[in-house]
Amino acid sequence: MFIVMRPEATDDDIRRVIEVVESCGFRGHAVPGASRTGVVITGNQGVIDQAPFSGLPGVAECIRITRPYKLVGSDLKQERSVIRIGEAEIGGDELALIAGVCAVESREQTMLTAELVAELGGKWFRGGAFKPRTSPYAFQGLAEEGLKILAEVRDRFGLRIVTEAVDEPALDLTEKYADVIQIGTRNSQNFSLLKRAGQARKPILLKRGMSSTLEEFLLAAEYIMAEGNYQVILCERGIRTFATHSRFTPDLTIVPEVHRLTHLPIIFDPSHSTGKRETVIPLARAAVAVGADGLLVDVHPYPERALCDGPQALLFDQYRQLVKEIRAIADIVKRSPLVHG
Amino acid sequence: MFIVMRPEATDDDIRRVIEVVESCGFRGHAVPGASRTGVVITGNQGVIDQAPFSGLPGVAECIRITRPYKLVGSDLKQERSVIRIGEAEIGGDELALIAGVCAVESREQTMLTAELVAELGGKWFRGGAFKPRTSPYAFQGLAEEGLKILAEVRDRFGLRIVTEAVDEPALDLTEKYADVIQIGTRNSQNFSLLKRAGQARKPILLKRGMSSTLEEFLLAAEYIMAEGNYQVILCERGIRTFATHSRFTPDLTIVPEVHRLTHLPIIFDPSHSTGKRETVIPLARAAVAVGADGLLVDVHPYPERALCDGPQALLFDQYRQLVKEIRAIADIVKRSPLVHG
Amino acid sequence: MFIVMRPEATDDDIRRVIEVVESCGFRGHAVPGASRTGVVITGNQGVIDQAPFSGLPGVAECIRITRPYKLVGSDLKQERSVIRIGEAEIGGDELALIAGVCAVESREQTMLTAELVAELGGKWFRGGAFKPRTSPYAFQGLAEEGLKILAEVRDRFGLRIVTEAVDEPALDLTEKYADVIQIGTRNSQNFSLLKRAGQARKPILLKRGMSSTLEEFLLAAEYIMAEGNYQVILCERGIRTFATHSRFTPDLTIVPEVHRLTHLPIIFDPSHSTGKRETVIPLARAAVAVGADGLLVDVHPYPERALCDGPQALLFDQYRQLVKEIRAIADIVKRSPLVHG
Amino acid sequence: MFIVMRPEATDDDIRRVIEVVESCGFRGHAVPGASRTGVVITGNQGVIDQAPFSGLPGVAECIRITRPYKLVGSDLKQERSVIRIGEAEIGGDELALIAGVCAVESREQTMLTAELVAELGGKWFRGGAFKPRTSPYAFQGLAEEGLKILAEVRDRFGLRIVTEAVDEPALDLTEKYADVIQIGTRNSQNFSLLKRAGQARKPILLKRGMSSTLEEFLLAAEYIMAEGNYQVILCERGIRTFATHSRFTPDLTIVPEVHRLTHLPIIFDPSHSTGKRETVIPLARAAVAVGADGLLVDVHPYPERALCDGPQALLFDQYRQLVKEIRAIADIVKRSPLVHG
Repeated sequence: MFIVMRPEATDDDIRRVIEVVESCGFRGHAVPGASRTGVVITGNQGVIDQAPFSGLPGVAECIRITRPYKLVGSDLKQERSVIRIGEAEIGGDELALIAGVCAVESREQTMLTAELVAELGGKWFRGGAFKPRTSPYAFQGLAEEGLKILAEVRDRFGLRIVTEAVDEPALDLTEKYADVIQIGTRNSQNFSLLKRAGQARKPILLKRGMSSTLEEFLLAAEYIMAEGNYQVILCERGIRTFATHSRFTPDLTIVPEVHRLTHLPIIFDPSHSTGKRETVIPLARAAVAVGADGLLVDVHPYPERALCDGPQALLFDQYRQLVKEIRAIADIVKRSPLVHG
Repeated sequence: MFIVMRPEATDDDIRRVIEVVESCGFRGHAVPGASRTGVVITGNQGVIDQAPFSGLPGVAECIRITRPYKLVGSDLKQERSVIRIGEAEIGGDELALIAGVCAVESREQTMLTAELVAELGGKWFRGGAFKPRTSPYAFQGLAEEGLKILAEVRDRFGLRIVTEAVDEPALDLTEKYADVIQIGTRNSQNFSLLKRAGQARKPILLKRGMSSTLEEFLLAAEYIMAEGNYQVILCERGIRTFATHSRFTPDLTIVPEVHRLTHLPIIFDPSHSTGKRETVIPLARAAVAVGADGLLVDVHPYPERALCDGPQALLFDQYRQLVKEIRAIADIVKRSPLVHG
Repeated sequence: MFIVMRPEATDDDIRRVIEVVESCGFRGHAVPGASRTGVVITGNQGVIDQAPFSGLPGVAECIRITRPYKLVGSDLKQERSVIRIGEAEIGGDELALIAGVCAVESREQTMLTAELVAELGGKWFRGGAFKPRTSPYAFQGLAEEGLKILAEVRDRFGLRIVTEAVDEPALDLTEKYADVIQIGTRNSQNFSLLKRAGQARKPILLKRGMSSTLEEFLLAAEYIMAEGNYQVILCERGIRTFATHSRFTPDLTIVPEVHRLTHLPIIFDPSHSTGKRETVIPLARAAVAVGADGLLVDVHPYPERALCDGPQALLFDQYRQLVKEIRAIADIVKRSPLVHG
Repeated sequence: MFIVMRPEATDDDIRRVIEVVESCGFRGHAVPGASRTGVVITGNQGVIDQAPFSGLPGVAECIRITRPYKLVGSDLKQERSVIRIGEAEIGGDELALIAGVCAVESREQTMLTAELVAELGGKWFRGGAFKPRTSPYAFQGLAEEGLKILAEVRDRFGLRIVTEAVDEPALDLTEKYADVIQIGTRNSQNFSLLKRAGQARKPILLKRGMSSTLEEFLLAAEYIMAEGNYQVILCERGIRTFATHSRFTPDLTIVPEVHRLTHLPIIFDPSHSTGKRETVIPLARAAVAVGADGLLVDVHPYPERALCDGPQALLFDQYRQLVKEIRAIADIVKRSPLVHG
């Protein structure tokens, strides 16, 4: 930590700060500046709480230097983490295409979509059995019945299943049926659920909170890892901003930052972030170009009849074409000698 | 719903939209405009899903007219809801001062603070036994041991207890010990917890999500009420913006809007929104001046030793003075003939 | 306009609203809904001011239907506008690469960079002679001396010059020396400067304000076009959000929206939006993948000595490689049968 | 400046950083931390540019310590600045009520309003003769004709005139007619206009940009003061956030921060920030309670006929009542021994 003193701070003020630093078991070093003195704290093993210092006479600001997360950081582990289930992987050389239905509405709708996903060489299938909905009066998902349909998708098409758990009981069930458990944006700081996810034996797909800073997002992952589950996939899904022409504002700059600061893979959800299929397509291409490790995409055989988020689901022909384009872009990015996030 | 057609939409496009509207059981009325035609939908009982219409040829935009919430709305219930427990009330004539400790750290710290709160005529005490913390390595609260200390506060000082439940097991416990159960900002869209709160026999203090729109905030309250618990107190606690000079940006304009649109009381938390005591004081005064029904304030006997959010806790003397000032301001507001939110 | 009445509005209230509508020369149509009545206004030629209606008894809300801009809209002009100067074009089939120096610091630095830009087949050169700086104590540009160096770049390398005008006197000068005049983000609602730009005989590159909505951005373009200058190029440069890991948050979803709503070209500035070269590279690729008509990129022969925004400038070798990659991505996008913005 | 090295930085990396620091004429001090080394720079007179350091091998981050503004800061001048014109003052003991019309629309409307303002003991009158409007098709103000009406207000009622200048020619005119020249939010980073304002002989009322950080806001004031005009009044007018229930989100926390960091007075505009009169009233009270030095309020004799921002203008009776209430609140704040910003 770096403590900046006010210009009018006296020598006594500075001495007092250093005493308090030392009473906490650290060492304090006064560094005189142009108009103000700074006190650098060393000797700490982790993050220092600023509470004891911020109120002392003469203190202007406490600036934290040490990062508050450990297990997610590339400081700890240099090589990139890859999530592997059989032949399917996320974070490896191949772009991970996780496509499927927003909500499992019926066996027919799900199987039709899974068939398309498999036909295009996909290895992952997404589908929601528990849907967190802003309104209590909206369709909330088929629950275990939906999970059973998803398990059938795995059996029939060999696709790996990604599905959301909205609470502890749902997580218990999901852990039995799914290959990857998703934690949604509205639960991204539901710390009890994060801890429970940390005890699961399945990889966790963690969506960024719609107003999470990068640090908060990484600390949410840290919650999972601190419980012993190191298989975490991050997912950018758009942040809340003043802009209204898109449901959320996709923050693609987070992809290279996550790659720089952590060893975890990060994918992008163009469907929920933008909310309309005309924008899903260009943003999906953009996320691959920026270096995302994969995509999470909604497709629907007849979106005008969808019970949930129909306007954002791609038509089958659109998805077919999109897959071609993003694979071509992924090739360009993979061959790039430039830092690509 | 109001469907705006594109300028180049044909008569056939408009006819097709009206057909689809009618196939959903509603009525469609074409209204020709300057350069574009609109289609008004009537005959619906609640919110209409835009999915069937938004993708039809010639459709430019679907504008929702009906509000998506019912039970919280002032349309349903004209008189203001007041939460009463014994002599203590929130939403009534008297300003509700809910003061106490951010986290229950020890019996001594809690009793000292409760004594001050009671001495100043307060009727409510706040204290956290379960703390949602951004970092997994931070102090997480004393759990049931903390709840017991809070119950002792009630017995000894006659104060009503407000405390947070972070998950279903905590809610079960809290329901036994507390008078009002708080749902925090990070759980404001944890819909499972909201439903569980809706089944509780105690009033719920619901904090606004840090990126919740007014509508999302009201729908979170609707989740609780839809389960049969009509005793809901809303709490503004600052929103996430680009501004960094304050931890969050308190959005005081929401107070008059909540009073206009709903029958629920709304209070303000100056401590967590601003993060530093120098700003807590003026913002507490401002919230009372804007017409808030109460305040939720952190006080601490020795904040430099606080385990959680020390820099925001008021000193005892500051709180004493603040109470005088805000009561005087509350008097001015109460006597005002102006719409005061 | 669509006026939504409150549920408790009386027939008299509705009648009064229709009277006022008619007194303004329009027609009002009452449309009864589930719980509330709406009044549709027709007969208007342009945007209707809501002032006369919003305060009438029983009125809940006024919803605007007609868009407030005209000249920028694709309603007015179906084919896409292309800006052409000799062989250089923006908005046509070829991706427009506008590369160069953030600030013209010296003849040598500018010529070295221009040589690289020309060598890679670029047709446009950017360079700032007037720099809008947040601090009054920062380097403010070489002014006319810088413009002369830029004119020399055009003579020597055949590159077309894009440079910023920060006020009317700078615009007068810039109009003499440059091929395209840039209006920066901090002047995006400097309406006097926009009007002056509308009287210029040169195309205008208009940057989005850092907190401009899409509508405000388009109205800024409308200011220029309303004065008779139809050659406008829009430029996304990142918006202000709560995220701090990037200088601004690039909002790539605006690219397909601009293409849908207007006939104007839109390019992207990855350098100023992200602020660091490691992020410039992936975001430049992303913008091309999303369908932007071009890029505005900072390059520097020795960025560690740059007087302005050095950390964001690409090294020569990085830019060489980037050009290859984005041309390959542009090819994929151009051949796409999908709506690509 | 404090340079944080990466954990894997070598001794050579650290040595190289210190060399570069010294080659810039400063001194560098290596401070070893838990897992990373920091380098503190001393010997600088002002802000240090991070460009030379941020790209060096092993450097993780550059943290600025010295504040970039000087003249506005309370470091420079301890006593609070008060703007005085005759008996009228801003920043002194008395709350400054600057009320009037949003736009001068006619002599009659302006005189009626001025009469009310004077009758209530106000000393300041606001009125716009040049209106910055988002749309080019909206009413842009009466220009010099409006300024003449304002001058008549001063002559007749003894009120001091505050009016906006939107560009240099308007500033020249305004300087002749007005007592205080306002720079609006959309020009808050129009640095040429700020410099021109710095050469004016009249006090400047500077509105915060709708997306300005506190630091950017203070640097805009610094632009004015650096030209020699020390009479600057800051004005908070709401920031752009995701919230849509209010036109902008008033950021009242900035008031105590400005008082802490600078010697300048700061007032609040409840009218433009909220956009509707029902919200203007409570927010005006709140701003006084938070410690603002004054208010800038729109009043209108018949707002339903206003050419500009009618829904936000207070009715005469509302303003009469509001003045009573805020004077009573101001008394409470003035007598407070607490830090009140």
